[in-house]
Amino acid sequence: MLQPGLMMNLPLLLSSVIEHAAAQYGEVEVVSRETHGPLFRYTYAQCAARARKLANALSGLGLVAGDAVGSIAWNNHRHLEAYYAVSGSGMVMHTCNPRLQAQQLIYIINHAEDRVILFDATFAPLVKGIAAHCPNVRAWVCLADAGNTPTIDGVANVLSYDELVEPCSEVFAWPQFDENTAAALCYTSGTTGNPKGAMYSHRAIVLNAMSGCMPGLLSLSPSDAILPVVPMFHINAWCIPYAAPIGGTKLVLPGPKLDGQSIYELMESEGVTISAGVPTIWQGLLAYMEQHGLRFSTMRRTGVGGSAMPQALIAKFMDVYGVDVRHGWGMTETTAIGTMGILPPQSKTWTSEKKQALLAKQGRSAFGVEIKVVNEAGDTLPRDGSSQGELMVRGHWIIASYYKGEKSPLIDGWFPTGDIATIAPDGTMQIRDRTKDVIKTGGEWISSIDLESAAVGHPGVAMAAVIGVKHPKWDERPLLFIVRKPGATLEKEEILKFLETKVAKWWVPDDVVFLESLPVGGTGKVQKGDLRKQYGGVFS
Amino acid sequence: MLQPGLMMNLPLLLSSVIEHAAAQYGEVEVVSRETHGPLFRYTYAQCAARARKLANALSGLGLVAGDAVGSIAWNNHRHLEAYYAVSGSGMVMHTCNPRLQAQQLIYIINHAEDRVILFDATFAPLVKGIAAHCPNVRAWVCLADAGNTPTIDGVANVLSYDELVEPCSEVFAWPQFDENTAAALCYTSGTTGNPKGAMYSHRAIVLNAMSGCMPGLLSLSPSDAILPVVPMFHINAWCIPYAAPIGGTKLVLPGPKLDGQSIYELMESEGVTISAGVPTIWQGLLAYMEQHGLRFSTMRRTGVGGSAMPQALIAKFMDVYGVDVRHGWGMTETTAIGTMGILPPQSKTWTSEKKQALLAKQGRSAFGVEIKVVNEAGDTLPRDGSSQGELMVRGHWIIASYYKGEKSPLIDGWFPTGDIATIAPDGTMQIRDRTKDVIKTGGEWISSIDLESAAVGHPGVAMAAVIGVKHPKWDERPLLFIVRKPGATLEKEEILKFLETKVAKWWVPDDVVFLESLPVGGTGKVQKGDLRKQYGGVFS
Repeated sequence: MLQPGLMMNLPLLLSSVIEHAAAQYGEVEVVSRETHGPLFRYTYAQCAARARKLANALSGLGLVAGDAVGSIAWNNHRHLEAYYAVSGSGMVMHTCNPRLQAQQLIYIINHAEDRVILFDATFAPLVKGIAAHCPNVRAWVCLADAGNTPTIDGVANVLSYDELVEPCSEVFAWPQFDENTAAALCYTSGTTGNPKGAMYSHRAIVLNAMSGCMPGLLSLSPSDAILPVVPMFHINAWCIPYAAPIGGTKLVLPGPKLDGQSIYELMESEGVTISAGVPTIWQGLLAYMEQHGLRFSTMRRTGVGGSAMPQALIAKFMDVYGVDVRHGWGMTETTAIGTMGILPPQSKTWTSEKKQALLAKQGRSAFGVEIKVVNEAGDTLPRDGSSQGELMVRGHWIIASYYKGEKSPLIDGWFPTGDIATIAPDGTMQIRDRTKDVIKTGGEWISSIDLESAAVGHPGVAMAAVIGVKHPKWDERPLLFIVRKPGATLEKEEILKFLETKVAKWWVPDDVVFLESLPVGGTGKVQKGDLRKQYGGVFS
Repeated sequence: MLQPGLMMNLPLLLSSVIEHAAAQYGEVEVVSRETHGPLFRYTYAQCAARARKLANALSGLGLVAGDAVGSIAWNNHRHLEAYYAVSGSGMVMHTCNPRLQAQQLIYIINHAEDRVILFDATFAPLVKGIAAHCPNVRAWVCLADAGNTPTIDGVANVLSYDELVEPCSEVFAWPQFDENTAAALCYTSGTTGNPKGAMYSHRAIVLNAMSGCMPGLLSLSPSDAILPVVPMFHINAWCIPYAAPIGGTKLVLPGPKLDGQSIYELMESEGVTISAGVPTIWQGLLAYMEQHGLRFSTMRRTGVGGSAMPQALIAKFMDVYGVDVRHGWGMTETTAIGTMGILPPQSKTWTSEKKQALLAKQGRSAFGVEIKVVNEAGDTLPRDGSSQGELMVRGHWIIASYYKGEKSPLIDGWFPTGDIATIAPDGTMQIRDRTKDVIKTGGEWISSIDLESAAVGHPGVAMAAVIGVKHPKWDERPLLFIVRKPGATLEKEEILKFLETKVAKWWVPDDVVFLESLPVGGTGKVQKGDLRKQYGGVFS
């Protein structure tokens, strides 16, 4: 018969994260860009005190454990206080993606039954448009002082966060409860059908944040300063707002200013050593730096995810700017990081190109997550680096079902990601495509992502997208969309010839459409569904 | 009402640790010194396979979940396999300290109800002496191949580990069970009374190991190689055998050869970057290196604990050899690391001496452990760096009670460590003494540890110990014991004059006793109890 361990029985709660930082790294700074412009600066000890004030304030508004509090907000210190105050009180922190359409925002706020919405002044017009449709919301709290809180026509119950919080006591006894209690809620961007909610537990977030601190992932130490560009309104900003206090790491929050210049200046002025964001952010940053002949003083490493980072961009970061790139993978349903790639010790003797090729992949699974790829029959495929199948994940921070969902999405206990991937013998995973984007042609699969990466390798290409179009003989054939770089005169013949040198001949697209821009959705991803609607006819 | 999170519900089990390494870092090496001399080398994938074989073998011996398996063994790969096979099967891995007296060993083996004992050939004489007194042990398994397994007079059931394990299948379905199940058992060294058992759960060990991987603690990455000199037979070798597979870190196990030359050569040949051990090990290592004019090629960092590391030794490591020193604190009752010290970012502008002074302290608590110091009335003392009180700890890997213990040692949910400490405003903890060693004089406390550290700062002192001796006027006064360095001619007057320049006048010991050696116990610590018995009279 199993014997019990005889250890203290304490839950993994988010309140313990911010109180750890307050007690052990109380003097470490949190720096935040206010929505109205200036930088704000305080310490983890002060952040914890403000979180306790907010917890008292929410209680004063009549909210109780189990209630949901929504946010429509940038990465800033008040949003951070809310992360801890709301979840720490046993309530649910529901981060809303402001890039969702108003209809979807209304849907998720009502579906989540948010009682209070915290919003940044940027989104006042959005609030104006949706407030009347959200009858359960008893207060709209602007994350600002009174002077920067706008009045919103037709919305009566708008409060200033500072006015609400400041009078409250900074003494608050965090409740102790089951670590499997819901802490946070985030909805998928829902390109088809209604958005679906992933309800994260305290345990899941704490374990993910502990993993995220590790050297093989983000590597957060008390000597580092991390700037998460990845938004706190989407998959918990990779849990960086939770991991940094665990690691004793200075946290730099960029607020609404995500252009190259603002990010660069903040990195330099705050001694940022680590960042994380989507590829487009890094393109903007490097473009600004190149234009002005700038270098990094302290930056050492950046995490990248959301979509594949072009190898040329990885090369520039590493070889020109001396910044390590760590490609990660995760989705709304995986709380935050599922896998991340770093160079192995034997890479010291590799060429730059070989290193970059490895780092363009999504890496190994974090401890706490298992991965496998399966074929359409559900059989596990070999880890040979070439067998493509749907990526399945299992672990401590992977959802088992959607909020108010009717049936579990799991298959034999594994979550089907909808991504097509390969896994190499060393455990390195590479996303090849989405199941719905992969192009099935003549019984084989063409990765739309690989084709797009190859296309953006051409100097005249700013953006590229590939969809499969029905074909009478081959089932599907690839159609390429190109947005030219400013001033580029690239034509169809040239890009197809270029691709012939980069991919297998049968991968070369059947046609090319040049566009001024690509349709981009709520999480910054190209909406291939829109392209399919307009261009998805039949090749002849 | 609290809402439930909707995440997968998987237990934190040790089997998942070794299987993570096998799947994600399958090619990373484990290198181990055989007890009979040569180096052995394999990978995490092979280690996991052998652990599964051993799990089958234990089952074949009739053992079932809940049974205890003892070990009397060095840090080596078979011991590592046992760590995972035993605990992963739902059994209890009971590591026995071979430095305990035979009577104590017999006591703990019977108290733990060990069914099988794994031992290294070194300890065959020990086994011979105790086997007859351990009637529940049905097999004594020597961690060796058949050729290196001794016959032991009077012990019939001696088996060779390799002979037992090799025929077994490497397929074994690790059972899934509650993460609070007992995984490992370690007894205190018990200077007074019988040893007491700390029963670690899977959850406690996994959480500690995750914490240990973090940059602010051991910082284990896939680019590192760690050599734990801290023994696997005592507080789980700081959980390094669990943390390294989580971090994807190469593991180098030194077997029985812990002399300076052997450790140095192993560090160099295996590219070791991180180590961990007690101060005496590092003294031996540096003595060897100095004697031969050697330098480290790859070593970057060493963890130190068990007793206070003299500042002079820290200085030598850092300034002469360029190796960071991280002082840690933990005890049998805290599974492994409770606190660890690293330099803060602002230390870049500090003098070497200021850095070393900070690193001589025991550092900040790991995420997962809370610390406080209390006075004799149990009131929490301020974190001012000077208020001394008993160190109290609470956390995920701290015991709540002893195995088969009658009453919980906890006070208001905190474990009283028996250590006297201070906590600085920045959270840095410093052990000042043991509650039973601190010298209470004229209503004030003198730290015996601080006095000893000051004394070993004298070039003629090899070892020093201080005890309190009853005094008619002052209650207690310090008595200093000195072991001179070979060739040193130090006398009482000189050392007392030296100390007057290092400590407050009222701290200077009343007398000095010169000894050839100090009594050292099972875990390498000076046995002050023995000194007290012999010298603890009354000062006049």
